[in-house]
Amino acid sequence: MVYSNILKNLHKHISLTQEEEEYFLSLLKYQEVSKKDVVLHQGEVCKHLYFVNSGLLRAFFTGQETKEATIMFAMEDWWITDMHCFLQQSAAMVSIQAVEASTLLKLSKHDLDSLYSTVPAFERFFRILMQNAYVREQVRVLENLSLPAEVRYTNFMKKYPQIVQQVTQKQIASYLGITPEFLSAIRATKRL
Amino acid sequence: MVYSNILKNLHKHISLTQEEEEYFLSLLKYQEVSKKDVVLHQGEVCKHLYFVNSGLLRAFFTGQETKEATIMFAMEDWWITDMHCFLQQSAAMVSIQAVEASTLLKLSKHDLDSLYSTVPAFERFFRILMQNAYVREQVRVLENLSLPAEVRYTNFMKKYPQIVQQVTQKQIASYLGITPEFLSAIRATKRL
Repeated sequence: MVYSNILKNLHKHISLTQEEEEYFLSLLKYQEVSKKDVVLHQGEVCKHLYFVNSGLLRAFFTGQETKEATIMFAMEDWWITDMHCFLQQSAAMVSIQAVEASTLLKLSKHDLDSLYSTVPAFERFFRILMQNAYVREQVRVLENLSLPAEVRYTNFMKKYPQIVQQVTQKQIASYLGITPEFLSAIRATKRL
Repeated sequence: MVYSNILKNLHKHISLTQEEEEYFLSLLKYQEVSKKDVVLHQGEVCKHLYFVNSGLLRAFFTGQETKEATIMFAMEDWWITDMHCFLQQSAAMVSIQAVEASTLLKLSKHDLDSLYSTVPAFERFFRILMQNAYVREQVRVLENLSLPAEVRYTNFMKKYPQIVQQVTQKQIASYLGITPEFLSAIRATKRL
């Protein structure tokens, strides 16, 4: 059943009545994407918040001087969007792409707002989600300051083995804020 | 009245009954700090979430190779803590210091948890606060990738003139992720 993962995800933090659950599920749209499909293009209005039902997505920024910097990954059971632009319904600062064939459940800003007013338990659910996202960014900034690149790479491999198997070394390097050349040197030392 | 700022801050996002408001205020502890006082030392258990009633705080990280990196500022009407360590009640990854004489209202983790269960409107309040904090970090990562240091400095000056007047150039430079020497060069060009 396509909704079993997202319901398990909700139940980690909140309990819902059957009616509330049905209302929530009625707001979701299902989307299948192939490997390399782009679900959000940088510059387009960011209309949806995505739940990764299966597969793996990444968010990346392309700039005049930056070729392509991967700034987020979202594996199965994670949520992803360009949060700033989703909340403002403005032009996305990043693109979001499927790293492998994936199935998604997406929610529009309008429907999320309805959800908050109809089922207040979602305030708690997204409070915890936003809190986790904020903490993840904060820890990342501090780890970039405090840990050598080798340690950050080893930690990333231990923490996200599923991601490491699917993405390119270039994508991991830009996520960790190091050059691909430096990552190759680290891998050579470690004989990975 | 010492509570007028924090009540205004709450009322931006939620409405409370008088009883709920009184319960919330009963959980707060008031603290006065002098310029340069450290309210949280890196390595100590992070016990409180702070509301800046007046003044200005900053959070900074000190490492073996990093002398001192300012990673956050919190001016009047802002909230600050080491969120990861506050939620885990673990050793702080940063120190928090008063940049100028400040008055604070602080909330413990235990009292925040009671607040969530007693007054569910606080789920909404902190959902919005966490969301803003996450978005701020996300935008900062993207601006660091996409905007030249000069532009980031000019934007910071326009956005936070109150902070610029109080803190050292070294603190601004580390917050923007540039060297103090480079910041001096930017300021010289702009004749600031």
